[in-house]
Amino acid sequence: MTRAVFLAAGRLRTLSLTANRSPINNVCSCHVSNNKTLRLPTHQVLLIQQQQQQQRHYISSTQEQQFQQGQKSIVLKTPKGTKDYNDKEMAIRSHVFDIITKVFKKHGAVTIDTPVFELTEILAGKYGEDSKLIYDLADQGGESCSLRYDLTVPFARFVAMHGKEYQNIKRYHIGKVYRRDQPAMTKGRLREFYQCDFDIAGTYDSMIPDAEILRVLCEALTALHIGPYTIKINHRKILDGIFEVCQVPQDHIRSISSAVDKLDKLSWEEVKREMIEERGLESHVADKIGHYVKLQGGQELLDVLFKDQAILNNKTALEGLKEMKLLYEYLEIMDVQDKLRLDLSLARGLDYYTGVIYEAITPASTQGGVGSVAAGGRYDDLVGMFAGRNKKGQPSMKVPCVGVSLGVERIFSILQAQQHHGTQVKSKETEVLIIAVGRDLIKEQMRLAKELWDHDIKASFMFKNKPKLEKQWAMCEKDQIPLAIIIGQDELNANQVRLKDMRIKDKSQGGGIMLQRSNLVSELKSRLKDF
Amino acid sequence: MTRAVFLAAGRLRTLSLTANRSPINNVCSCHVSNNKTLRLPTHQVLLIQQQQQQQRHYISSTQEQQFQQGQKSIVLKTPKGTKDYNDKEMAIRSHVFDIITKVFKKHGAVTIDTPVFELTEILAGKYGEDSKLIYDLADQGGESCSLRYDLTVPFARFVAMHGKEYQNIKRYHIGKVYRRDQPAMTKGRLREFYQCDFDIAGTYDSMIPDAEILRVLCEALTALHIGPYTIKINHRKILDGIFEVCQVPQDHIRSISSAVDKLDKLSWEEVKREMIEERGLESHVADKIGHYVKLQGGQELLDVLFKDQAILNNKTALEGLKEMKLLYEYLEIMDVQDKLRLDLSLARGLDYYTGVIYEAITPASTQGGVGSVAAGGRYDDLVGMFAGRNKKGQPSMKVPCVGVSLGVERIFSILQAQQHHGTQVKSKETEVLIIAVGRDLIKEQMRLAKELWDHDIKASFMFKNKPKLEKQWAMCEKDQIPLAIIIGQDELNANQVRLKDMRIKDKSQGGGIMLQRSNLVSELKSRLKDF
Repeated sequence: MTRAVFLAAGRLRTLSLTANRSPINNVCSCHVSNNKTLRLPTHQVLLIQQQQQQQRHYISSTQEQQFQQGQKSIVLKTPKGTKDYNDKEMAIRSHVFDIITKVFKKHGAVTIDTPVFELTEILAGKYGEDSKLIYDLADQGGESCSLRYDLTVPFARFVAMHGKEYQNIKRYHIGKVYRRDQPAMTKGRLREFYQCDFDIAGTYDSMIPDAEILRVLCEALTALHIGPYTIKINHRKILDGIFEVCQVPQDHIRSISSAVDKLDKLSWEEVKREMIEERGLESHVADKIGHYVKLQGGQELLDVLFKDQAILNNKTALEGLKEMKLLYEYLEIMDVQDKLRLDLSLARGLDYYTGVIYEAITPASTQGGVGSVAAGGRYDDLVGMFAGRNKKGQPSMKVPCVGVSLGVERIFSILQAQQHHGTQVKSKETEVLIIAVGRDLIKEQMRLAKELWDHDIKASFMFKNKPKLEKQWAMCEKDQIPLAIIIGQDELNANQVRLKDMRIKDKSQGGGIMLQRSNLVSELKSRLKDF
Repeated sequence: MTRAVFLAAGRLRTLSLTANRSPINNVCSCHVSNNKTLRLPTHQVLLIQQQQQQQRHYISSTQEQQFQQGQKSIVLKTPKGTKDYNDKEMAIRSHVFDIITKVFKKHGAVTIDTPVFELTEILAGKYGEDSKLIYDLADQGGESCSLRYDLTVPFARFVAMHGKEYQNIKRYHIGKVYRRDQPAMTKGRLREFYQCDFDIAGTYDSMIPDAEILRVLCEALTALHIGPYTIKINHRKILDGIFEVCQVPQDHIRSISSAVDKLDKLSWEEVKREMIEERGLESHVADKIGHYVKLQGGQELLDVLFKDQAILNNKTALEGLKEMKLLYEYLEIMDVQDKLRLDLSLARGLDYYTGVIYEAITPASTQGGVGSVAAGGRYDDLVGMFAGRNKKGQPSMKVPCVGVSLGVERIFSILQAQQHHGTQVKSKETEVLIIAVGRDLIKEQMRLAKELWDHDIKASFMFKNKPKLEKQWAMCEKDQIPLAIIIGQDELNANQVRLKDMRIKDKSQGGGIMLQRSNLVSELKSRLKDF
């Protein structure tokens, strides 16, 4: 019999699954805490158990008895779609952030920070259908606030709000964002997750900042060693021009655009059916669209389009095409053009993009169904949405922007998978463990530690008056501490310490070497130099 | 006439302050957007304006007209009690975090991360009266969640949840916490603010981890250069013992404790009155308490208490006293005892403390009324609150903990104030600016930048096809970029570049030195070595 506790209709209930649970039966008899019996479908019970296992909140049978006795206890878990990061995971995370930050700083970016929640009206109308995924704070009096959905809208709000000085800025921001999406923890889709954003705001000449953003993205992905990657790229103006050329009605363009964006997951036939049946497009129009959006390739694809008279006759498409050609010239200089793949089906969901758009994928991210590892594009009108309008109804301020966002949770997943096959992650930086042989040497251990701390040496000792020798060695081993200092009454009397270098596996080292206490710090420093 | 827009009763209103605003008049005529006139007290109007200025959300008169015309716009501000951090502020913040993290790592701590919100029931019953300050998320279906109020309760939840491996841990956590308190931005009291926590969980011998925590706190505060500081220290057992000795009824102890804690802000007479009139204590009991809680001093105060027969006869007080004596012996070895000041009136508000408690203050924090810059103590029962209970009603798990939390917002304020008198904050790390003399050299600038980026040199250039020379020099100056490379058509033809070291103020340098292009990288590297 399996016992588990679950939360149903806001109340804690205890399930005791009787022996008749089997894949053949599709129903389980469930003993509920108030002594009633529930019959639940087996798949539902299994699901509950699986979720509990994932969230590690198995409750001991002692606790279960308490629930039955009506005593209060707490379900130990983090909220749905969120997780704790332990020390090993944090070591990987810091490593990833360090690499990304280094690239961002190399390209002259500064960092800013914005609050984790914004006034609700700031986020309103920026995310299309996805607005329903925004977390709101409870009304406890005062302003309506919501947790940020991304770092881009708060950045645009920041630029609009802080005056001239910040209307030309390269900024990076690493921070958590919040989406009430259906979580898929194994695919790295969480409700609380990190984004690493790099954006350039300011009125500059065409495609120069766009090229640097793509170079930044390539440098970061290469430095992260996540294996081969491709950056799919397209241009909103080319896409919109194609729709115009194919005579898609203006008010259908965003909707058809969304359908086309699914071509990375669905076949052309499926997408075509959706456009016709669900979005009311005529069949011959769909076929024309198909002719274009199935096109993928390198720079040579631009030459093909430059020979397409229909495209050349469309002002929007031609503008996009020219910009794309210039971008490729710059990318070639920056030596990242071979990482890019022109993909005319790429549309990106968010409403605010106005120019070039891109998405980085890896074989792992595509196969695993986790989607892209990074994405971004140009959004020239977002800052203006926060400014007022002039008499002509135009935004009173225009700050063009282009940026990219790395979804590091997915990168963590890839790196963690690599880690499983490799060496153990070291999360603690301790350099020296001070080991006592014998009891009541704690003050001597402290005296030594204090001396090492004063010299910025990372020293630790066990917090025990009578520490067991084998436990101290085990601590040294587990935390991968490179150096051990051993003190006993004999050493103390002779004003000496014994030093053992744990990195030397040579047995001739034996119990280590004896040192005069006065030489200890310099000896440690020299051994730690190349650590 | 001053124009401003303010939010009243949830609606936007436009104020046009007429010329009769003066310190002599105590009333302003205010023109409100719906063409009515309001008369508001001048101080209220000034307050509105001042708040607006602080939050930098002045709205242009164009926008105001729109409000009057009923067009929709957005108030640009961050939610009440929160703020953006610009690049300069972030540079100071990173500096502070780096210093603190270095100390934490030196003492063998690893870091973990927990979600920014927890299940509401995890936070319930942990913060006494302050629970009303907890932010709840809106009910959008699913679990009830709340933003974390501190990092201590999530840490205890983490320890209780993640099994044996994490029941012995030194961990640090730097993260934002949330309190719906009345904000006082200038005093560093915000609704969203950072805490830097260091905690030691595990069953160890008496006062050893407590001593290391206090050493960690002193190392951090010293390294931050915030000037002189004092750590007030007390012990919950001594305090509770004193209350027992003075015959305070058991169920009054926490309430009387709260009153005593105010002795740093109120006089003894005021505290005494509160204890008698509001908390129903007898006058002679209050006087007995006063005899003890007015005591402050160094180690010698312990000797005084060790001679007090009433204290010695009280089991709780004697236990606390012995622990405190041992702690002082350890602190003396760790050479921080002179930073501490025993203060028998220190009580700390939070319910969960069970042993030694402490609070760091500086002259600035005391005078400015911002309170302590760091605080903490021992909390041996918090983890157990998340575990179940055994048949005897005892927690099925006990993990004693001790920790400290640095409130860095207050430290930022102190450091920012210092900064005003000192040098300019440098937020951008760019090392080389590539300056073009003449037009259409953008591709050459990119080619050079790419080469420098490949060698990990932080290079930038202006995103313009026809950059103005003086603007490029201004950029160099503003961002404090140490090196400038100048290219023009002549230099390009000769395969040369001109290099100017902006750090050399010597005029003999003139326009810089000429270099062969092939020597550029090594020349830059050698000049940047000591940057």
